[in-house]
Amino acid sequence: MSINSFGHLFRLTTWGESHGPAIGCVVDGCPPGLELDEHWVQRFLNQRGPGTSKNVSPRQEPDQVRILSGIYQGRTTGTPIAMMIDNLDARSADYPVNAPYRPGHADFAYDSKYGFRDPRGGGRSSARETAMRVAAGAVARLVIPEVEIASAVVEIGGEQDESRWQAMLDEARAGGDSLGAVVECVATGVPAGWGAPIYAKLDAELGGACMGINAVKGVEIGDGFAAARLKGSENADAMRAGGRFESNHAGGIAGGISTGQAIVVRVAFKPTSSIRVPVPSVNAAGEEADAVTRGRHDPCVGIRGTPVVEAMVALVLADHKLLHRGQCG
Amino acid sequence: MSINSFGHLFRLTTWGESHGPAIGCVVDGCPPGLELDEHWVQRFLNQRGPGTSKNVSPRQEPDQVRILSGIYQGRTTGTPIAMMIDNLDARSADYPVNAPYRPGHADFAYDSKYGFRDPRGGGRSSARETAMRVAAGAVARLVIPEVEIASAVVEIGGEQDESRWQAMLDEARAGGDSLGAVVECVATGVPAGWGAPIYAKLDAELGGACMGINAVKGVEIGDGFAAARLKGSENADAMRAGGRFESNHAGGIAGGISTGQAIVVRVAFKPTSSIRVPVPSVNAAGEEADAVTRGRHDPCVGIRGTPVVEAMVALVLADHKLLHRGQCG
Amino acid sequence: MSINSFGHLFRLTTWGESHGPAIGCVVDGCPPGLELDEHWVQRFLNQRGPGTSKNVSPRQEPDQVRILSGIYQGRTTGTPIAMMIDNLDARSADYPVNAPYRPGHADFAYDSKYGFRDPRGGGRSSARETAMRVAAGAVARLVIPEVEIASAVVEIGGEQDESRWQAMLDEARAGGDSLGAVVECVATGVPAGWGAPIYAKLDAELGGACMGINAVKGVEIGDGFAAARLKGSENADAMRAGGRFESNHAGGIAGGISTGQAIVVRVAFKPTSSIRVPVPSVNAAGEEADAVTRGRHDPCVGIRGTPVVEAMVALVLADHKLLHRGQCG
Amino acid sequence: MSINSFGHLFRLTTWGESHGPAIGCVVDGCPPGLELDEHWVQRFLNQRGPGTSKNVSPRQEPDQVRILSGIYQGRTTGTPIAMMIDNLDARSADYPVNAPYRPGHADFAYDSKYGFRDPRGGGRSSARETAMRVAAGAVARLVIPEVEIASAVVEIGGEQDESRWQAMLDEARAGGDSLGAVVECVATGVPAGWGAPIYAKLDAELGGACMGINAVKGVEIGDGFAAARLKGSENADAMRAGGRFESNHAGGIAGGISTGQAIVVRVAFKPTSSIRVPVPSVNAAGEEADAVTRGRHDPCVGIRGTPVVEAMVALVLADHKLLHRGQCG
Repeated sequence: MSINSFGHLFRLTTWGESHGPAIGCVVDGCPPGLELDEHWVQRFLNQRGPGTSKNVSPRQEPDQVRILSGIYQGRTTGTPIAMMIDNLDARSADYPVNAPYRPGHADFAYDSKYGFRDPRGGGRSSARETAMRVAAGAVARLVIPEVEIASAVVEIGGEQDESRWQAMLDEARAGGDSLGAVVECVATGVPAGWGAPIYAKLDAELGGACMGINAVKGVEIGDGFAAARLKGSENADAMRAGGRFESNHAGGIAGGISTGQAIVVRVAFKPTSSIRVPVPSVNAAGEEADAVTRGRHDPCVGIRGTPVVEAMVALVLADHKLLHRGQCG
Repeated sequence: MSINSFGHLFRLTTWGESHGPAIGCVVDGCPPGLELDEHWVQRFLNQRGPGTSKNVSPRQEPDQVRILSGIYQGRTTGTPIAMMIDNLDARSADYPVNAPYRPGHADFAYDSKYGFRDPRGGGRSSARETAMRVAAGAVARLVIPEVEIASAVVEIGGEQDESRWQAMLDEARAGGDSLGAVVECVATGVPAGWGAPIYAKLDAELGGACMGINAVKGVEIGDGFAAARLKGSENADAMRAGGRFESNHAGGIAGGISTGQAIVVRVAFKPTSSIRVPVPSVNAAGEEADAVTRGRHDPCVGIRGTPVVEAMVALVLADHKLLHRGQCG
Repeated sequence: MSINSFGHLFRLTTWGESHGPAIGCVVDGCPPGLELDEHWVQRFLNQRGPGTSKNVSPRQEPDQVRILSGIYQGRTTGTPIAMMIDNLDARSADYPVNAPYRPGHADFAYDSKYGFRDPRGGGRSSARETAMRVAAGAVARLVIPEVEIASAVVEIGGEQDESRWQAMLDEARAGGDSLGAVVECVATGVPAGWGAPIYAKLDAELGGACMGINAVKGVEIGDGFAAARLKGSENADAMRAGGRFESNHAGGIAGGISTGQAIVVRVAFKPTSSIRVPVPSVNAAGEEADAVTRGRHDPCVGIRGTPVVEAMVALVLADHKLLHRGQCG
Repeated sequence: MSINSFGHLFRLTTWGESHGPAIGCVVDGCPPGLELDEHWVQRFLNQRGPGTSKNVSPRQEPDQVRILSGIYQGRTTGTPIAMMIDNLDARSADYPVNAPYRPGHADFAYDSKYGFRDPRGGGRSSARETAMRVAAGAVARLVIPEVEIASAVVEIGGEQDESRWQAMLDEARAGGDSLGAVVECVATGVPAGWGAPIYAKLDAELGGACMGINAVKGVEIGDGFAAARLKGSENADAMRAGGRFESNHAGGIAGGISTGQAIVVRVAFKPTSSIRVPVPSVNAAGEEADAVTRGRHDPCVGIRGTPVVEAMVALVLADHKLLHRGQCG
């Protein structure tokens, strides 16, 4: 119900703006007794970190997480786990207050909703918030040790051949432009029976979770849109004795409930709207002016999106493990 | 948050099995004073009804809705609106208890979760439940009179040329097979400012809502997966004075909040798994046997999916209108 | 969270007006495999039924419940359990539309909130809604077979001596007046560990659940207000080896979590505001006029309140058993 | 739904242990554009602060709050407001790990639930958490400027005569004992129409909110338990033209909805269980031993409870103002 919270029983609440003093989160509902320290969380944050290659934002943020509650003697206590990351390399001068709205970015929509906004670094709408999703996802993984979650970029700028990507990224960056990407995430080890009928379907929750990641415009489960081009007889995943399936068009979910097969999610990231190429726009006063983003941004946000997709998948699965245990014992 | 409920402030709860005595729903949180009667709801139910053409299930269900509460002298009172439809043409003999699991259907997953299930007509997992979404969606439309919602099938079996569809459908039905489809839904008139940051983003909610419709495997907002193939400069929707946009790649949503442009959602329906073509499977005892569905089904569920997509879009928008009014006045 | 729903994982939604065609509820999140039929539910409804003695409303309602979903072959399936009771003996003529607001009743408050209301029999604000709480409570009891819940009226009109009550009730009824009552409910068999810190404390949930029953104005856990008159050394429940306590001032809950002792809740019911004694009031037009209730009412609603208090306690405990199992396994 | 969150639209999540590095909260759903700074919040925290007189805990905590997000140029932005207070004067040595469970405290219940706990200063169960309720309540007050909330201790140790209290407190402190108290809170200026039927009744929400405050064992609305001793004709609040009432037995709420009269809540605080008087108990190993609390505690927690009661009332009212606006415009 809350707009900055996610999950039912395993529940994440995040806070913080891109250029405020810090960002943080509260993870509520975590089972007690799990071994957890900052090193474990940091490992996943480092996968997302900026400044690690020329293909991602040059912003220098060590993103050093601190755990402020919910742990005693190295184990979770069942009480809320608060985590925080200080913002160190904010350059608010990059974001003049009267700048034209960046088309495709949240600027105009936030102003329309709230009447005004914190413009520095995108404020609350910055993808910096996703660091806390990654941190919470690291905790979620401890709840589901039986599950392995892995993801990869499978397409950049419409190109599936990896060997072409670096040249394309170099060209986009040089031109002050950006590229979209598709990320595929696979979760293996999920037993049959997680998820729930109707409005908490596992695919609905994964769909909502991934569509809510910054810059995402499409989500598929299993064959996704390609399934809409098959016949029913082609799309059927034949079953054999012992719970073995002969194919996995369904992506591991039927009727909103896991089948025991690998869960497959594919996520489309648009090219970031923070580009140096001028785009016609207006400012808050309604005056027309070209938008040119000068902040430090990723030429392809999908690359840093992979750990975020994994985190959201981990959060959904941990939550549904607990929900299933709650209802079905 | 509850597994058979949907929405935050404008909230739908549904109940009922395909072959039980009835199906029904409760719509909670509806504003008072709206004119509502059964004719209005029935109009939308009739769009979804089976037995209306050879392309949809021949099951004969008048689907006559009764409103049991929440209305006084033709207007909503602000209290829960209960609606109910009797199940009249259930043929449970079509569903022997020891039948092999229908691959792609929820049978196996339900048994894995709950230990047993009502097998008659798919029980709770039947798409019959979507009738109540349509009924609730009809109420939701009254909450958002400023919004026009329309949808259409834009692709069947991978084919976008409408003139080819009837032949394809005839062939699929004759062969006891089924076809997938893509449905596009457009909502115009949504003012800028609906939606909410982070975990109640309008696109996340629409994504989750539509992914949770039976047989849906993919959802796109605006350009969706195609956006992942564009450059940032191509994908940017230039803005001009007066709140005018020169394109709508974003599908009317930025940062999770409506921009005032048309909201565009595209939904991929897989071909139904209820087909007469035999598919290798197992039964609850683990014995291998071919699954052959003999019930009365749709050759292309996407066709009857259009009013359901519209209903889910209406439910999300009505809910977010109220949420926005609650927080921002 | 929704205004006509109650509970987190084991969740009740009710609907219906006093003089509409029916009242009903949906119980969501019930574990699968529990034996349930209408006889079990009816048994508890009959405890609440009107027309059973001269001390309760003479309205003749058989209150025959029908279960419409969520059961297959006599057992719960894990899907929503819909229950319904037809309204048979509604006498709407007892409630003229322009009648003065009944002081103490919801009439004026509903009009203030919604602009208008269904006045027949109190509409949605009628205690008739509590029949569905009792029905849902009957299902909740199946979830917690280890728990025994019992309640009794312990005070009527300020008098604790039972032998005086009948004369007091006769006098009140003869005078068209009503009496308040205090109900005590005890739940034994709750293991230590149910409940949750801070905002889902077992006592907070019981407090909210019971304060939300029609006509309730006060709730106590354990010694309640009397505890505020003790010293800490007097109020302490000494513990002995084997989990034995030497007293139970705390009413079985510490820090919001059950201790394994009996859970004790005491609930104050005001005298019903539906009385024949004229009370100065105004009508919807703002004109002063005496309110005189002519409908059929209980001289002491606390008497019929006992099964409702038990039901709310059962709902809270069932919910928290599932919540505890979800988080802690 | 979440165990460490409170509220529907205006929603508080708290975190932190008594002897961890800090405690904090996130306030989500706050309307944008409200003037807010740390001074405003601090003013209410100072009312709750320890070390201010001999009647409250001598723990020296400046309780200096920092606001970390959700504000730009001195106004709320509509995004989450994170607040944090560092723990400075924690003396964990006061809490040996193998100490006997303090009877009446949460120690035993937490261990029963989670298997182990942070014993330092009561960990999560410490009343230190209520500082964040007070901080959030300060923000809530900004949402409801039309409402005035005031509270007072009306009874200590069963004594209503204020002039006797100091001697009683001196005696209790000297004897290492503690006293209970009753706090009354009155909210004026609430318009008729806030609240909601059935399961989000204003009195149910206030009842749950106040019963969930540490050490609270009873809650009354209006005349509370005294109403159970009145006749209906005595308890009726006669209404006169112009929305004027001649009495307020109901405490400003009818049918769960505000009537425009003052809302009156009375809350019973037990004497704190942290006392120096030895009480027979057991430790985690099950061995019998007297519990003697040596930490620094309040002789009468009800005194510092007043700002907490006010905060909970403010949170409920702010939430219901937004809920009402959401549904009814």
